[in-house]
Amino acid sequence: MRILVLHGPNLNLLGRREPELYGLVDLATIDAMLQRAGQRLGIAVDCVQSNHEGQLIDAIQSAIGRCDGIVINPGGLSHSSVSLRDALAAGPPALEVHLSNIHAREPFRQRSLTAGACLGGVYGLGAAGYVLALEGLVARLRDAGKA
Amino acid sequence: MRILVLHGPNLNLLGRREPELYGLVDLATIDAMLQRAGQRLGIAVDCVQSNHEGQLIDAIQSAIGRCDGIVINPGGLSHSSVSLRDALAAGPPALEVHLSNIHAREPFRQRSLTAGACLGGVYGLGAAGYVLALEGLVARLRDAGKA
Amino acid sequence: MRILVLHGPNLNLLGRREPELYGLVDLATIDAMLQRAGQRLGIAVDCVQSNHEGQLIDAIQSAIGRCDGIVINPGGLSHSSVSLRDALAAGPPALEVHLSNIHAREPFRQRSLTAGACLGGVYGLGAAGYVLALEGLVARLRDAGKA
Amino acid sequence: MRILVLHGPNLNLLGRREPELYGLVDLATIDAMLQRAGQRLGIAVDCVQSNHEGQLIDAIQSAIGRCDGIVINPGGLSHSSVSLRDALAAGPPALEVHLSNIHAREPFRQRSLTAGACLGGVYGLGAAGYVLALEGLVARLRDAGKA
Amino acid sequence: MRILVLHGPNLNLLGRREPELYGLVDLATIDAMLQRAGQRLGIAVDCVQSNHEGQLIDAIQSAIGRCDGIVINPGGLSHSSVSLRDALAAGPPALEVHLSNIHAREPFRQRSLTAGACLGGVYGLGAAGYVLALEGLVARLRDAGKA
Amino acid sequence: MRILVLHGPNLNLLGRREPELYGLVDLATIDAMLQRAGQRLGIAVDCVQSNHEGQLIDAIQSAIGRCDGIVINPGGLSHSSVSLRDALAAGPPALEVHLSNIHAREPFRQRSLTAGACLGGVYGLGAAGYVLALEGLVARLRDAGKA
Amino acid sequence: MRILVLHGPNLNLLGRREPELYGLVDLATIDAMLQRAGQRLGIAVDCVQSNHEGQLIDAIQSAIGRCDGIVINPGGLSHSSVSLRDALAAGPPALEVHLSNIHAREPFRQRSLTAGACLGGVYGLGAAGYVLALEGLVARLRDAGKA
Amino acid sequence: MRILVLHGPNLNLLGRREPELYGLVDLATIDAMLQRAGQRLGIAVDCVQSNHEGQLIDAIQSAIGRCDGIVINPGGLSHSSVSLRDALAAGPPALEVHLSNIHAREPFRQRSLTAGACLGGVYGLGAAGYVLALEGLVARLRDAGKA
Amino acid sequence: MRILVLHGPNLNLLGRREPELYGLVDLATIDAMLQRAGQRLGIAVDCVQSNHEGQLIDAIQSAIGRCDGIVINPGGLSHSSVSLRDALAAGPPALEVHLSNIHAREPFRQRSLTAGACLGGVYGLGAAGYVLALEGLVARLRDAGKA
Amino acid sequence: MRILVLHGPNLNLLGRREPELYGLVDLATIDAMLQRAGQRLGIAVDCVQSNHEGQLIDAIQSAIGRCDGIVINPGGLSHSSVSLRDALAAGPPALEVHLSNIHAREPFRQRSLTAGACLGGVYGLGAAGYVLALEGLVARLRDAGKA
Amino acid sequence: MRILVLHGPNLNLLGRREPELYGLVDLATIDAMLQRAGQRLGIAVDCVQSNHEGQLIDAIQSAIGRCDGIVINPGGLSHSSVSLRDALAAGPPALEVHLSNIHAREPFRQRSLTAGACLGGVYGLGAAGYVLALEGLVARLRDAGKA
Amino acid sequence: MRILVLHGPNLNLLGRREPELYGLVDLATIDAMLQRAGQRLGIAVDCVQSNHEGQLIDAIQSAIGRCDGIVINPGGLSHSSVSLRDALAAGPPALEVHLSNIHAREPFRQRSLTAGACLGGVYGLGAAGYVLALEGLVARLRDAGKA
Repeated sequence: MRILVLHGPNLNLLGRREPELYGLVDLATIDAMLQRAGQRLGIAVDCVQSNHEGQLIDAIQSAIGRCDGIVINPGGLSHSSVSLRDALAAGPPALEVHLSNIHAREPFRQRSLTAGACLGGVYGLGAAGYVLALEGLVARLRDAGKA
Repeated sequence: MRILVLHGPNLNLLGRREPELYGLVDLATIDAMLQRAGQRLGIAVDCVQSNHEGQLIDAIQSAIGRCDGIVINPGGLSHSSVSLRDALAAGPPALEVHLSNIHAREPFRQRSLTAGACLGGVYGLGAAGYVLALEGLVARLRDAGKA
Repeated sequence: MRILVLHGPNLNLLGRREPELYGLVDLATIDAMLQRAGQRLGIAVDCVQSNHEGQLIDAIQSAIGRCDGIVINPGGLSHSSVSLRDALAAGPPALEVHLSNIHAREPFRQRSLTAGACLGGVYGLGAAGYVLALEGLVARLRDAGKA
Repeated sequence: MRILVLHGPNLNLLGRREPELYGLVDLATIDAMLQRAGQRLGIAVDCVQSNHEGQLIDAIQSAIGRCDGIVINPGGLSHSSVSLRDALAAGPPALEVHLSNIHAREPFRQRSLTAGACLGGVYGLGAAGYVLALEGLVARLRDAGKA
Repeated sequence: MRILVLHGPNLNLLGRREPELYGLVDLATIDAMLQRAGQRLGIAVDCVQSNHEGQLIDAIQSAIGRCDGIVINPGGLSHSSVSLRDALAAGPPALEVHLSNIHAREPFRQRSLTAGACLGGVYGLGAAGYVLALEGLVARLRDAGKA
Repeated sequence: MRILVLHGPNLNLLGRREPELYGLVDLATIDAMLQRAGQRLGIAVDCVQSNHEGQLIDAIQSAIGRCDGIVINPGGLSHSSVSLRDALAAGPPALEVHLSNIHAREPFRQRSLTAGACLGGVYGLGAAGYVLALEGLVARLRDAGKA
Repeated sequence: MRILVLHGPNLNLLGRREPELYGLVDLATIDAMLQRAGQRLGIAVDCVQSNHEGQLIDAIQSAIGRCDGIVINPGGLSHSSVSLRDALAAGPPALEVHLSNIHAREPFRQRSLTAGACLGGVYGLGAAGYVLALEGLVARLRDAGKA
Repeated sequence: MRILVLHGPNLNLLGRREPELYGLVDLATIDAMLQRAGQRLGIAVDCVQSNHEGQLIDAIQSAIGRCDGIVINPGGLSHSSVSLRDALAAGPPALEVHLSNIHAREPFRQRSLTAGACLGGVYGLGAAGYVLALEGLVARLRDAGKA
Repeated sequence: MRILVLHGPNLNLLGRREPELYGLVDLATIDAMLQRAGQRLGIAVDCVQSNHEGQLIDAIQSAIGRCDGIVINPGGLSHSSVSLRDALAAGPPALEVHLSNIHAREPFRQRSLTAGACLGGVYGLGAAGYVLALEGLVARLRDAGKA
Repeated sequence: MRILVLHGPNLNLLGRREPELYGLVDLATIDAMLQRAGQRLGIAVDCVQSNHEGQLIDAIQSAIGRCDGIVINPGGLSHSSVSLRDALAAGPPALEVHLSNIHAREPFRQRSLTAGACLGGVYGLGAAGYVLALEGLVARLRDAGKA
Repeated sequence: MRILVLHGPNLNLLGRREPELYGLVDLATIDAMLQRAGQRLGIAVDCVQSNHEGQLIDAIQSAIGRCDGIVINPGGLSHSSVSLRDALAAGPPALEVHLSNIHAREPFRQRSLTAGACLGGVYGLGAAGYVLALEGLVARLRDAGKA
Repeated sequence: MRILVLHGPNLNLLGRREPELYGLVDLATIDAMLQRAGQRLGIAVDCVQSNHEGQLIDAIQSAIGRCDGIVINPGGLSHSSVSLRDALAAGPPALEVHLSNIHAREPFRQRSLTAGACLGGVYGLGAAGYVLALEGLVARLRDAGKA
């Protein structure tokens, strides 16, 4: 089993950008946490970050037939990108992660367009939320595989 | 460490009600899963279900000083109850769980009033989402304890 | 055949509260009318009133497998309770009754959240609307039974 | 006592048009059901269908002083016609009927402009809803006659 | 000079319908007032009433090249008919009349779609408003003729 | 009989300001037209212009018991001033005049707060609209005096 | 194969009405273009224009079982008529045509109620848009016939 | 004279919950202040707190004919409960109290559904606001008694 | 201690204007009541009324450093004046008073822009509400002085 | 004459993604259809697909002075991209194509920002819609060339 | 060249009012900065502050034919005054200045009604923004003078 | 000191695209103006244009620790890009420039999402607005450096 982890715009700044909102952990650390979790779960994990909507869409498309699922933090694109939503609807099953609690922030962050094309999501748990999402997605895919 | 798990209105019907949305697992099974997860994590878990908004508020209040955190699935009250939100804001740190992906359902389910008073949440992962939320909350509380 | 009749908040005040809107008939009289109609139709009728959302949800749940249908006047809960809607969606087939014409009243009364989880409804006909709803529901259930 | 039954646009297609929404009964059958109900109630029933808003308004106006009440299914005009509402406000007491549950359909069908100018209504009960509305209206008019 | 006066749906009921809103004067009396005003102004006046949107559009179209201006009370169609607005935009210069003060009534009457395709209008002055509109329109057309 | 004519903010610029919208006639000419109309009607006419909301309110208040009616063009205050509306509701009967057709302009000009506290109004007829409003108001007051 | 072409309100004015928006071609010319296109495609074409919503609904209904498809320009009714939408939903497959680009006009023209009950549409291409729609509809119906 | 003081959900937490918003005074202290004020005013005061909407409705109903007025702080139910509003409309005259200034908080707290069914209210004055409301209500009832 | 009492537009008409809404007491009587209350409380009270937004802002500004608090009834300016809100935010602590229950009136009166810049308020208690607000404000300021 | 055909995000997935919505034809087939249509029409056709908003804007800009017109299917960018709209407004005349009927889908797909900067469009006709758009655009450009 | 600088309500409090938002510079200092900038640019600068909307309108009107341009900080009137907008539309070319970044504040401050009647504006740069606006306006007027 | 100047989508077309809105000056000229201004101010200026949201975000991120401030014209991205806003919030202090007066254009251009993450901005002053923004930003940074 292979899972693609996608980090959207500005997530490469983690640890430096508004740490009271996003925490002090940087992206390399999160990716390392995810790799360790992947080893523990016996799966391959590919991590990609991009500030470009188009590259994220390309990555989702190239995961079709190659990956079994996606964990994505679309960052600000969650709230505005119909194209990313369309790519997720066409791609492998996905979970959406947000580091902060988007329901406790500005009104324009309380609606997620992309969430409607995912299976579900995790928000507000910081870096740990990525690992939970990975575990949850793998469990879901294995359950589906058994059924 | 002691965690209160709260199930809101109609969750006692799990397994029988709209299984294509909510899955086939019933509430006793979820509570057993949570107890096992609690033993694995070395914490006490108390599970309560109620169809009464007031009883949920009472339970949150009585958890103050007695529990370290709350995992809550407020059911339909997520979308309408300011009082439950106020109770959560006054209570121990909480995570919100939804079995289904509320972002892919009716418009009136896409806004959660209660989510703004929680740390974060998990949605769309069925019964497994409760366990993820419990793990995530315990990890968060232990991290905070160390800091 | 057994039908549960549910009266929501404040309906115990009927006959005393704003009679120009709700009429002069009190709830005991309505329940007696419904019992007579039940005898005429050859069915059992159980009438329950509560000012508590949770008790109404409990009553709907306990009707599952015990009653064949529900006639409900949710009162003010029609306009705000997602939880009651969820209970109705999980319960036996239901019809919604309103004594007054909710479409000719304040804007916040012109949307019914609960109506979307019922088969249909009757409004604006005062106490007689309950009897019509009972007759309509029984006919519908008997038709479905034949099909 | 004489009651005018008005069927709005597209109701002449009943039985053929989207039967999962509107049922398999055609309009002639409904009119026959209403005539039988009229005989049982000892009243005259006139049934008119038109796809023309203007003809429906003409019919309501010509009922003033000639009919004692109106049962109307305005079809799609419920949601857009202020003129039909004005005619109903000027005409004999009316009840509004909808075959389907308009509260469980598209948003633009969940507001009825015409309902505010009627005494009340019945919805979601298919063809049987017309008969209930006729019975309810006759009972209401006889009660008013006694008072 | 020839002016077409158009009365929309339900205005044939004037004097009988909600007189506290619309006054006690009937339509024949208004038409006679307009004829007298026409004689005083030295112009021909044609008065037409219809409950049919289509007939009002036909009348506006047939006035092109035959009448110099239009005085129209679109009744309830003011608030919903884009087609009537389009006809007015294509027809001779028009003034809109409302007997009642639409700004002091229900919200759905406070927006006039048709007014945007007229030169201007008069409202809230009862039957006298028609005569003022006729005088105002004739004066405006004579001024334009001079320029 | 004495009528107060009130001109709101910026109307002192008439003839110079956006003449394609407001015409070429200046305010002194309009006041002279109104004086001539007053003589023809046998009434006294007082004309006041102010750019100050407070002075317009003062003027309306001082007209109580001194004037029989008001013709007012509130200019931009129509769309924003609750206080001017309150003054008009407390003052003598009033008609509202707008030189341009406010229904064919920017969205924020299509709602008049002040109109709801007047008897009615005239719009889109330029300077002539004032004279029509004066005539209409005087006729209305004389009719009321007879009744 | 037989296609019904329906022209809604005010389209009989084409060539005379706002030519900068709607072009200089009149309706007879468009109908002749459509007849020639029909001959080229080997199909029968019936063209009907009406300013009456009811007649358009009647025409759609009478096309059931008699025509294979509909090309309709509903004019202003696109934006307000639920009844026309219902007729289209019950009738043969339809395409919607608009001469102008409705997305570049007033806000109230940017939503089409009727479009949701058609297969698709063509807009902004003037008279040529009718011929494209006819060609597109015939091709679609022939494809479906093959499948 | 007897006044019922009702405290809604979460007010039993006063003094402990968000003291920067709600102050440091606890509910027992407020009730004692109200009892002293009652003695000073020569009236009986009954204080009830509940987290259950239904119990608050029951309490209002049982006050009919037994109490002369109500002082109520509905807490979060102010913003969502139509049923509580209906109970207040049917009960003795009421004043609404809020400890904090609801107009300076989240948008969903700036609309009070229950306030429309009360005589008036006091907000933003902390615990002292209860005493002012009690004094104001008693004065109002005594004035009404004299009239 | 010195308190400024500000009465906004149209409050000089009290006792004469819509007495069913605003009561029969005139402004001089209210000011006398406030003076007596001031003597009882041992403070100076200055009362000012103006129909001019600018004068009210001037008065608030001149109170800075000269008065200890403000009781203000902004009248209709509550609902539209950002400038008055800004002045209140810059001035001494203020309480807002409304004679009527603004929550039970027209929609445009249910939002108060100025309330967000005050400590709190009193509404719906008529003239007595001013005295309560004065007492409440003085108590609050004395408490703050002690702390 | 040279026409640029632009395919936006996710259109490279055609034939594989949600075929019940978008059909079974893949993008290479559509491009071949367009090349054949170009040969039939005697024009050059360049086809470009990109998932990157910026590349689509670059392509439109580079078409200025090099191509005579554009056929564009902006995919999900139709509903969110002001920048793409601006590029289209600055580029050669364009037609917008959508494979599915966007008016019969989710609310956020029913508004097209980009359509307002095009001449017109075709929607709901699947792959054939591209060819119709190409033919329509070429005819329009040739007509304009003649005029 | 002569430029009028207008300061709206509450700007006379600068340096004292919410300095974290508006800075520590007072209005006399800003006016001195503007006078020095005027000398440097070789133009006359007149500075006026008023808390009265009417006086600001008077000042704009009196600048017609006397000043070449206006720099205005309308304060809170930006968000509510149609009359001030109308005056600016009739006056000399204007630039709008805000000391704070209105886009990062409350929702009701994010729309400027007056900005639409100005050439442009400067916001969020504190006192320095006035000087930039003055320089920008003078450069623009000199450019226009050359053209 | 080093300032990054960012030009968003379509700004490379300046001088050719809608010159009545955006002026006749092209981007190279603006960049030359900014370089001259930079020399005058003694700072380094880097100018970058891109039609790609992702490249703009990359550029902002790479400016962290390398540049002291940013002048950005986000073009159409102002109104839709949450990701660009997030990058600006994480980057050096920024000012937003718009060539045209966005407050006098289409409604969707009147809200700037990115502006809320900048210090302030300049709009409506054409190319000169860039220079003003540069000067304003440098002054602000030097002031902050002194403090």
